[in-house]
Amino acid sequence: MKTHHKLPLLQAGSPQGFRHIELTDPDAPSAWSVKSYTLRGGLQDGVDVVEIRHGKFSFAVLPTRGMGIWKGRYGDCPLGWDSPVKDPVNPAFINLQERGGLGWLKGFNEWFVRCGLNSMGAPGMDTVLDNSGNAFDVPLTLHGNIANIPARAVDLEITDTAIILRGEVDETMMFGPALRLNTEIRTELGSGAITVTDTVTNLGNNPVEHQMLYHINYGAPLLQKGARLLAPFKQVAPRDPRSAEGIQTFDQYGAPEVGFVEQAYYYELVGKRGSRDTMALLRNAAGDHASLLRFSLKDFPCFTLWKNTAGQADGYVTGLEPATSYPNPRRFEREKGRVIVLGSGESRTTEMRIESLDTKTAIRSAEAEIKKLQKAAKPSVSANPLASHADIS
Amino acid sequence: MKTHHKLPLLQAGSPQGFRHIELTDPDAPSAWSVKSYTLRGGLQDGVDVVEIRHGKFSFAVLPTRGMGIWKGRYGDCPLGWDSPVKDPVNPAFINLQERGGLGWLKGFNEWFVRCGLNSMGAPGMDTVLDNSGNAFDVPLTLHGNIANIPARAVDLEITDTAIILRGEVDETMMFGPALRLNTEIRTELGSGAITVTDTVTNLGNNPVEHQMLYHINYGAPLLQKGARLLAPFKQVAPRDPRSAEGIQTFDQYGAPEVGFVEQAYYYELVGKRGSRDTMALLRNAAGDHASLLRFSLKDFPCFTLWKNTAGQADGYVTGLEPATSYPNPRRFEREKGRVIVLGSGESRTTEMRIESLDTKTAIRSAEAEIKKLQKAAKPSVSANPLASHADIS
Amino acid sequence: MKTHHKLPLLQAGSPQGFRHIELTDPDAPSAWSVKSYTLRGGLQDGVDVVEIRHGKFSFAVLPTRGMGIWKGRYGDCPLGWDSPVKDPVNPAFINLQERGGLGWLKGFNEWFVRCGLNSMGAPGMDTVLDNSGNAFDVPLTLHGNIANIPARAVDLEITDTAIILRGEVDETMMFGPALRLNTEIRTELGSGAITVTDTVTNLGNNPVEHQMLYHINYGAPLLQKGARLLAPFKQVAPRDPRSAEGIQTFDQYGAPEVGFVEQAYYYELVGKRGSRDTMALLRNAAGDHASLLRFSLKDFPCFTLWKNTAGQADGYVTGLEPATSYPNPRRFEREKGRVIVLGSGESRTTEMRIESLDTKTAIRSAEAEIKKLQKAAKPSVSANPLASHADIS
Repeated sequence: MKTHHKLPLLQAGSPQGFRHIELTDPDAPSAWSVKSYTLRGGLQDGVDVVEIRHGKFSFAVLPTRGMGIWKGRYGDCPLGWDSPVKDPVNPAFINLQERGGLGWLKGFNEWFVRCGLNSMGAPGMDTVLDNSGNAFDVPLTLHGNIANIPARAVDLEITDTAIILRGEVDETMMFGPALRLNTEIRTELGSGAITVTDTVTNLGNNPVEHQMLYHINYGAPLLQKGARLLAPFKQVAPRDPRSAEGIQTFDQYGAPEVGFVEQAYYYELVGKRGSRDTMALLRNAAGDHASLLRFSLKDFPCFTLWKNTAGQADGYVTGLEPATSYPNPRRFEREKGRVIVLGSGESRTTEMRIESLDTKTAIRSAEAEIKKLQKAAKPSVSANPLASHADIS
Repeated sequence: MKTHHKLPLLQAGSPQGFRHIELTDPDAPSAWSVKSYTLRGGLQDGVDVVEIRHGKFSFAVLPTRGMGIWKGRYGDCPLGWDSPVKDPVNPAFINLQERGGLGWLKGFNEWFVRCGLNSMGAPGMDTVLDNSGNAFDVPLTLHGNIANIPARAVDLEITDTAIILRGEVDETMMFGPALRLNTEIRTELGSGAITVTDTVTNLGNNPVEHQMLYHINYGAPLLQKGARLLAPFKQVAPRDPRSAEGIQTFDQYGAPEVGFVEQAYYYELVGKRGSRDTMALLRNAAGDHASLLRFSLKDFPCFTLWKNTAGQADGYVTGLEPATSYPNPRRFEREKGRVIVLGSGESRTTEMRIESLDTKTAIRSAEAEIKKLQKAAKPSVSANPLASHADIS
Repeated sequence: MKTHHKLPLLQAGSPQGFRHIELTDPDAPSAWSVKSYTLRGGLQDGVDVVEIRHGKFSFAVLPTRGMGIWKGRYGDCPLGWDSPVKDPVNPAFINLQERGGLGWLKGFNEWFVRCGLNSMGAPGMDTVLDNSGNAFDVPLTLHGNIANIPARAVDLEITDTAIILRGEVDETMMFGPALRLNTEIRTELGSGAITVTDTVTNLGNNPVEHQMLYHINYGAPLLQKGARLLAPFKQVAPRDPRSAEGIQTFDQYGAPEVGFVEQAYYYELVGKRGSRDTMALLRNAAGDHASLLRFSLKDFPCFTLWKNTAGQADGYVTGLEPATSYPNPRRFEREKGRVIVLGSGESRTTEMRIESLDTKTAIRSAEAEIKKLQKAAKPSVSANPLASHADIS
């Protein structure tokens, strides 16, 4: 493998700022281009973008929004969704505490959004211990901070076979969690796949709690009436009574329905023995377009399926959410032993692969893989929320 | 009418950002110029400005502050006021939740400020229904969000007879109100008038509440001892006991008075039969300078007069406030049936004309118009707050 | 004295923005340079910096963070500390209300930080009177606003003998405190000293409360095992029971200790008769490096020593904190009569000198000065918090 380009787009501590480049090799086996720029005006003022294209695949990363992935396209299939929030929003304009801790929703429109690093899930008061062991209350906001922290460093590498974007995002404060995300977003030339390798490090001297959820979101056309979610599981249960109403069709999607109220299903997935590798496949009705997640349950033991097949203008969207825990209030997840604690200097590295499929053959093959994984466990669907998963007190 | 210039100053979704131009036609019958630039440094860093001048009239629009109008001038008469907040403030620096929901006051210094779009008026907890019909509490902040949202698109048009600035501002979120403001700010060459035509659209699939108040503010010299507010009305009542103290002189102004505590008067104006067109005139003591609002009660059925003749350094200012309701807590206005609900995709278009007058003749003529309108109703002044208008519980 | 350069770096109300310059005179008796630039990218995006160097002394001022001083260096001795917050943070990204009013800690990493202007100290609810004499509750956030307000004007002056940087920072709002800080940061060429002359003015027509604390912070190597704090005092008392645990060694420092919980000591210093000039000296174990504060008790009657000898990665740091009061909740300080009230238009000017010492001789001489000052009072060390200083209710 030969590296053709290796250059910083943003260097921590430098007055240079985000570098605007345009690189392309139209003659490569899989013609590629990388373009970086900064959006200006409105709520998007100052949002840096890195657009990566090769073959029939493209996607745009937002360093300013915690290295989230704004949107993608594979052939003629857009990856992402249409949010009521039209433009990427500079975190400077976001107040996470708005509307009772729901301010995150004013910037929510990406294909791939990280939730974390110190907390994620439902907003609410949590009680934490300070260094002297005294308890104090911290109002946690929906899905934590990481999506609203600009990366402090971004690097681009282009090799014979892949384009790799790396970023560093600090979620730190004095007298509080000091967590660093180092992400590598890699795409092999000619593929329709992204591999996100995230390393989260506790920069501090004391243990700190860590949560991470990938909010991977799809709207039309992948999401449509008759679309399905396939994944090998031991157990699926609705999050709440509203979700229980839809349990008969928990893995199937309806058309946009104005007034549809969101539903969520908590999965215990099955993974390969040893590696605990697993899969989740969202495929359209015809079975000729799909997005496939591949990850290990060692990295993301919990999986949530979020169904929001509301009206198109309200955000017709489903979220595939591999995570370190379920997106309940952190207080609840802690009680269930699902909140990770990183020791001083400790790092945790995870990998997520997102593949775009656009042939029935490829999709059937992925389905066969899922069926094979399913053999390891009898799938059980609970009609009602389970106390082990959901805060149904 | 011939269009000489038609150009975007800011395009949604473009990395171009706000365009800095300087156009002028000194030889036109009414020599005009338009200049656009971005303020830099301090709290004003990143605030875009469009300065429009023709004849003896000029004003500056702030796209970054929701297309508000910073200040104007007609001949030697400044339009606007001196706030303790000296510079236009980039919304990135504003936390609307500060000081118990009063953060809006840290950016308040414009001549013309919109309050809305989903709420306006006094801060406080409101209860709203989510899509599943469940009630939840939302802490509303003073005068809502719109003045602190940057426009995502701005267009300039210059014709034979007018300069027209258009802007689009999105007040949207996931799982919340998705309202769009499209404003057109038009000034006829050679006039001292602005016509603001606002269209607010519910971008979402579900009905959404909408409130709008124009906070149109004047300080010295238009505001001075002996200045008066003239408007045709059926009913005027003080907002609260403090305002009741000044009911004898509710339409007259005193000199700056250190320690003066604000007063507000709720008007039921009279409009022309049919069009329901009405007027409100602020004129100085000598009656040779005035600012005149023309609008329809169909658009703005409620009018509030805000008197804050405090010390000059504390903000010697009066606000003329045509609105969809009174600026009470939204909860109260909803009970009184004064909160608008826009259906899915529904738009509401309103028009406000602000005229600068600088001759006794013109002012006398406006006063005569007001007197004529007044004939349709016997004006009643209530010594005390009315339960129908004011939250006096 | 001859002025060689006098130029604005930032002018209020100008679209010019912060001026990037590089001035140097390598041939001057004490070779000097001044460089100004704007940091870009990450949380530091838009933070203006002025770097001043002469002889073996250098320091960097952050106009965007209320004219705080980021870090310095004297010879091989860094001045400042290593915070878990790595980059200077643009206030646009700070929400002071976060984590129950502790959002200030997300931007805390400077050598010299002002706390104020209307409040400082511990966060919490305070009750204030509005202009009509009605009480209302204001949630105060940790250490107030001033460190998170960008300067609106910055001027540089370079003379034969000194480099002087001036800045103006407005902490104003409508219907609230309107305070202006005018600071002059002066360094004599060839010295290792900074003199900070701050003037705080009440721009408003009504009296307003004013608090100021200088949070002057040092980490390694000045702070180290065996380092000491020397100051002439009448009385020292621990802030709280935790601090009482360390009263035996209140003026001595330990090595970094993971899990160390902060301690604070409230001093009543002794000043020279008349001028009330006093000193506080932080010196390393060997006694060959030190930082010395010189100020008058007329300006800063209260002094707090903050010891946070935690693990290096958690922020191994001590704060020397001359202030108008102790950093208790403002409500408590008001009761004790320690909150300043500035009348309409009233200004208060203070001076703080920070000297870098790097010879045993200079340090011994400073210690001798302190001993001499100490003669005026018998030093008393209280084993327990005193009700007069600390909110021990």
